[in-house]
Amino acid sequence: MTPRHIVAVGGSDAGISAALRARELDPTTDVTVVVADAYPNFSICGIPYYVSGEVTHWTNLAHRTAADLAATGMRVLTDTRATGINVKEHTLDILDSIGAPQQLVYDSLIVGTGAISTRPPISGLSGADALRPDDGVHLLHSMGDTFAVMDSLQQRNPATAAIVGAGYIGLEMAEALTTRGIRVTQIEALPEVLPTVDPELGALVHTELEHNGVEVLTDTAVTAITRADTGALTVTASQDGQTISRTVDFVLVVVGVRPDTELAADAGAELGVKGAIVVDEAMRTNLPDVFAAGDCVHTHHRLLGITWLPLGTTAHKQGRVAGENALGGCTHFAGSLGTQVVKVFDLVAARTGLREHEALSANNGWTPVTSQSTPDDHKAYYPGATPINIRITGDQQSGRLLGAQLVGHRSAEIAKRVDTYATALFHEMSVDGLSALDLSYTPPLGSPWDATQMAAQAWVRGQHQSATSAATETDDLSMRLLSGDATTST
Amino acid sequence: MTPRHIVAVGGSDAGISAALRARELDPTTDVTVVVADAYPNFSICGIPYYVSGEVTHWTNLAHRTAADLAATGMRVLTDTRATGINVKEHTLDILDSIGAPQQLVYDSLIVGTGAISTRPPISGLSGADALRPDDGVHLLHSMGDTFAVMDSLQQRNPATAAIVGAGYIGLEMAEALTTRGIRVTQIEALPEVLPTVDPELGALVHTELEHNGVEVLTDTAVTAITRADTGALTVTASQDGQTISRTVDFVLVVVGVRPDTELAADAGAELGVKGAIVVDEAMRTNLPDVFAAGDCVHTHHRLLGITWLPLGTTAHKQGRVAGENALGGCTHFAGSLGTQVVKVFDLVAARTGLREHEALSANNGWTPVTSQSTPDDHKAYYPGATPINIRITGDQQSGRLLGAQLVGHRSAEIAKRVDTYATALFHEMSVDGLSALDLSYTPPLGSPWDATQMAAQAWVRGQHQSATSAATETDDLSMRLLSGDATTST
Repeated sequence: MTPRHIVAVGGSDAGISAALRARELDPTTDVTVVVADAYPNFSICGIPYYVSGEVTHWTNLAHRTAADLAATGMRVLTDTRATGINVKEHTLDILDSIGAPQQLVYDSLIVGTGAISTRPPISGLSGADALRPDDGVHLLHSMGDTFAVMDSLQQRNPATAAIVGAGYIGLEMAEALTTRGIRVTQIEALPEVLPTVDPELGALVHTELEHNGVEVLTDTAVTAITRADTGALTVTASQDGQTISRTVDFVLVVVGVRPDTELAADAGAELGVKGAIVVDEAMRTNLPDVFAAGDCVHTHHRLLGITWLPLGTTAHKQGRVAGENALGGCTHFAGSLGTQVVKVFDLVAARTGLREHEALSANNGWTPVTSQSTPDDHKAYYPGATPINIRITGDQQSGRLLGAQLVGHRSAEIAKRVDTYATALFHEMSVDGLSALDLSYTPPLGSPWDATQMAAQAWVRGQHQSATSAATETDDLSMRLLSGDATTST
Repeated sequence: MTPRHIVAVGGSDAGISAALRARELDPTTDVTVVVADAYPNFSICGIPYYVSGEVTHWTNLAHRTAADLAATGMRVLTDTRATGINVKEHTLDILDSIGAPQQLVYDSLIVGTGAISTRPPISGLSGADALRPDDGVHLLHSMGDTFAVMDSLQQRNPATAAIVGAGYIGLEMAEALTTRGIRVTQIEALPEVLPTVDPELGALVHTELEHNGVEVLTDTAVTAITRADTGALTVTASQDGQTISRTVDFVLVVVGVRPDTELAADAGAELGVKGAIVVDEAMRTNLPDVFAAGDCVHTHHRLLGITWLPLGTTAHKQGRVAGENALGGCTHFAGSLGTQVVKVFDLVAARTGLREHEALSANNGWTPVTSQSTPDDHKAYYPGATPINIRITGDQQSGRLLGAQLVGHRSAEIAKRVDTYATALFHEMSVDGLSALDLSYTPPLGSPWDATQMAAQAWVRGQHQSATSAATETDDLSMRLLSGDATTST
């Protein structure tokens, strides 16, 4: 029997994608989406650009308006909290927009409750007298958080700000606040900013921040945030065993998120890596007719196996799969490669696949080796050529491509170059095999061997050099043929 | 026995790539490159940017200087013509730079003689009194042609020019001459400019040309070029049965190239498609120890089989293969997908794989179907979003991706988006399968489903709509699941 009543919990990427897919595949199916706030289908990734002023009105952040969603035939219940799943009865307890308890009947349920901000163990951020948005101290993950940030910015008109954390959102917010004319201090506990790429590349982002007037403090662990009677906020941190502090008008704490699993867990859903909901590749939980997708579930990774890697792209794909299967379909999430990109001022940083330590952690017997090279984005004779810093990680034994990281100018088409690597990874290509790809070339936009291929050839050449320096008196062509040829990279 | 003496004929992409590869793999091998002119390893694709003035000196067009090449240990004989291959004796007859006959001994020979400009059957272009560069009438393929063009431009200081042909080089030259302040009339015999893409997309390039002041005449066959005593050049053409003419100061005829095979053919090399030299995938000709690569050989195409598709990217790959195999290696050219890109003013046009009529001509049993969609390059809420016109061709039966064409603004990272399709084609993906790729996303540079995926979803949805309109009273989920979902493309 085809499920007639599908309920999705969560109005962000996963829940809406699931609902859209179900409605698209069967317009006769009754689809209800339960949304805790008033902002279904908003682009959370767009928040920094609203804060910066580049997005002129918050409503523009909606992927679709309420009317767009209604036109698909789905029912969207905003300001409605899901409070309990009754697995046996196939009902969902909710508190409706006026706080009244109701029940929704489902044949299939999709949990897309997402993630919530991590509140780090910093003095001043917890307890009864924890500093709050009213004090100018903010977390940032939801539209509600966003409005609080905007209120603070408008009311306090801060001249200075501290951002705790230098991951994607932290870096984007450093740019956003700088764009607003605020002097930003960015504080990262790890040795380099953007810890999702190797520090050699993170250092380039670090320089770009400083070049744009951001004070960057790395290896610096924030221990306390305090508020003076004047309203001034002091961030105290430990750096090289010294205590340092910055007094600012505004503080943003963006140190990551964790899966929001309470609803599913209370109903008996199994939790796994990082506390995320366990699902199979069809996005089924262990609970009958209960699917889950997005940031609240663990992630099938094509190279790592099971991990937790919350990304909007993944949530869209998983939601689409869940929506199809909730309707009785039989499709699977093909798995993540962790492909990511971030723009920081005029730099773009991207990665896909694994870095060395990640490849080692996969326990697949790989011996990961990484090379770095800096091919130009296009022919040097055409104006505007700029080097792209590319790190390639491959398995020394098999030559298999394991991952790629790229940092360069925003004109260097880095976001789409990482996609070439991602597509190659999807197909388990060897690093050397990349040179066989028929990629596009015109002097203003590339090279006869694209930068992606030149970087791969540099990796292969590095392997050759290691091999020949390790070997003794070999003059075997097969070994010499290990060598790539960036010298033919014209 | 390892070949000790390798000779390459031709100083462009194929010959130099082969020589570099051989030297790289075995620095003890004697490698000689015979170059007919004084310009080895020049970027022919860069010529328009030298003519435009964007490349400030012609020497900058060299991929490598003479010193760079010498440093690899190869010997480069410039101004040296190869006049005969003595297959049995393994010698090459040459006329050296002072015109003296010499012989080179080879163990392996690589023919990389390239292509030569087609001289179309236009009155005034052939015969004893054919118009020449001195008259302001030019072909353009070599550095010699380039110097003649530049001399003409400097001496004649033309206010107006006609370009016969609107392929890649013709379009780039229209931009180059316009950049120099010359009023250009571009004349194309076919119904639309840039005939390598479908006319729906060529029309966008047509508009871009006109927007930049280029007069564009399509469906217009040039019949004659005449020179008045004043030096003025009149181009006469037939359009819709009418005779039209334009009198200009400068004429460029760029209607294509044909393989330059005389040397190889005289030695007994088999010729095939379009008169190109027949080679196997190891780049061996039918002559013992004679390899060939680049524009002079036919092209192994991954979808079409054998064709002739001269491209610099392909010449580099084939040359590299030939150089390795000339040394006793055993590698193969993986095949072309015809991936190409061109920038025309602020537009970029790219393609990979096959268009419908090409897919039909492949005789692989495909039923090619094409869809067109215009997803934005990045989230519309972030400034600068621009639609990309994407045409996807897939096989109706199998769903296999056969080709993609893209036209859009130069900021839209089109050159690297076509590479995603090229990589997918390399791996014989289905159109629907593209949605499983983990591509990068950040609002300033993309969408959660990249434009490449949205276009693929539009194709799948189109297939679904055809299927359901063809079917009667079907309510089968499997059919509905044929449907892609660009509505989840947020």
